Amino acid sequence: MARQGIGTVKVKIHKGENTASRKDLIAMEEPLEIRLGYGPVTNRQQKSIAVTMRTPGHDMELALGFLFSEDIIQSMDDIESIHYCEDLDSEEEKENVVRAELGSHVRPDFEKLERNFFVTSSCGICGKTSIDSIKSYCEKLPLGIKIEWNIIYMLVKNMEMKQQLFGVTGGLHASGIFNQLGELMILREDIGRHNALDKLIGTFFQKRKLPLSKSILLLSGRAGFELVQKAIRSGIPILAAVGAPSSLAVSLAQEFDLTLIGFLRHQSFNIYSGEHRII
Amino acid sequence: MARQGIGTVKVKIHKGENTASRKDLIAMEEPLEIRLGYGPVTNRQQKSIAVTMRTPGHDMELALGFLFSEDIIQSMDDIESIHYCEDLDSEEEKENVVRAELGSHVRPDFEKLERNFFVTSSCGICGKTSIDSIKSYCEKLPLGIKIEWNIIYMLVKNMEMKQQLFGVTGGLHASGIFNQLGELMILREDIGRHNALDKLIGTFFQKRKLPLSKSILLLSGRAGFELVQKAIRSGIPILAAVGAPSSLAVSLAQEFDLTLIGFLRHQSFNIYSGEHRII
Repeated sequence: MARQGIGTVKVKIHKGENTASRKDLIAMEEPLEIRLGYGPVTNRQQKSIAVTMRTPGHDMELALGFLFSEDIIQSMDDIESIHYCEDLDSEEEKENVVRAELGSHVRPDFEKLERNFFVTSSCGICGKTSIDSIKSYCEKLPLGIKIEWNIIYMLVKNMEMKQQLFGVTGGLHASGIFNQLGELMILREDIGRHNALDKLIGTFFQKRKLPLSKSILLLSGRAGFELVQKAIRSGIPILAAVGAPSSLAVSLAQEFDLTLIGFLRHQSFNIYSGEHRII
Repeated sequence: MARQGIGTVKVKIHKGENTASRKDLIAMEEPLEIRLGYGPVTNRQQKSIAVTMRTPGHDMELALGFLFSEDIIQSMDDIESIHYCEDLDSEEEKENVVRAELGSHVRPDFEKLERNFFVTSSCGICGKTSIDSIKSYCEKLPLGIKIEWNIIYMLVKNMEMKQQLFGVTGGLHASGIFNQLGELMILREDIGRHNALDKLIGTFFQKRKLPLSKSILLLSGRAGFELVQKAIRSGIPILAAVGAPSSLAVSLAQEFDLTLIGFLRHQSFNIYSGEHRII
């Protein structure tokens, strides 16, 4: 059950002046530790690089998406294998630790990693330096696609139809990749919105389908700086969010010419950047 | 303007088949770096311990709430002073770096700090060890208060009346502390829900008003593991969230006897733990 991301919990429900007890569905949350194996075959090293609170499921994709977003790996050529750690005591722990084996040619830059980590994906202490630091590994987005505005209106409904876990628990964020016709290609859900997007990106990364230069990304929540950064890193030209963007997310989108849409409803949305892709 | 947490942005609005351009309000997002000054007067050291993407405002409270939540400081006796860094190049950077000067008697445990940091406030690789690790610095909550269920119904309306930034930007999380009568004492807003709660806790920490053993905490969003941990650390006996709790948040609340309420609406809510405080 946990593997599908949903558990059950006993709950007492108050409604007006009445109360009732029942079992209810709940979104699972468990820590996931991401470890790297690296170095020459004769002298392999291991380093724990992050622990995130996530909803179990698509753990390999989450780890790959995280490593790619943080600029630690560039393609599946950098990955020899990825698996749950075997050398742990309990069954429960085993499915909470993923180890990515880097090819022996890959030299991970741990200083950069720590810097990234400390600054949760930015490198500066002001908005401008945060944006500048991303230029070292992300490029300005090419046009990619142009789409009609009525396609945008279809996205939310198309995602809601497929959003399995949120419907029953009310507690999960969703990220979806759509094609130019507004059809949902892949959907990922997680208790953390960064994780939901990492799982989604990791899925395409693993299949060697990045950059997603003909795709539209839909987020069920708000669009902050780090989520915009992950979209740019994956080459996605259009990002639509059901919630609001932040000031720095708009600046970053403008700098890299990402089309950024916020407050997406069934019959309205706002464009904050990259208007030229919407016709 | 940035200091109040709101900026403006040019936006193109699509509604049905019509479009219009206008200026709109937007939630500010900027990095905040938290540094520690420590060691004997004759040989002060500095260490950067975290950068978080936050909405400017109440930065000292955010830093103090973070340091307290992470068990790096215990009371204001550990803090000699706290201020923006002066030795930086630009004005913009200055207001994005806070340095907390620890008293010379305080020996920060950087190993623990790094461990905390890597695991974003948990220390384990499964739910159980995550909860166990919190026992090293948090105690089971005493009863504190009992409140009538109709007080719970008042919380959301009372917070919405005061929630200034969200109303105009739609992009901010809020955390509020209420007294036993359901009256809002202090409200804090931020683009990150962890930050909103750290700002709130830091405000009481700075005034030496922790533990909040007679208070109710209301969160505008969901209740995950880390938010429940911060409530327990601050001695808050009742946490109500507008959104859903996670599985691990419920387990943690049960372990420390926190009253955990989710899906709070004007006329309904669910109790997941600590029912005995609601009469």
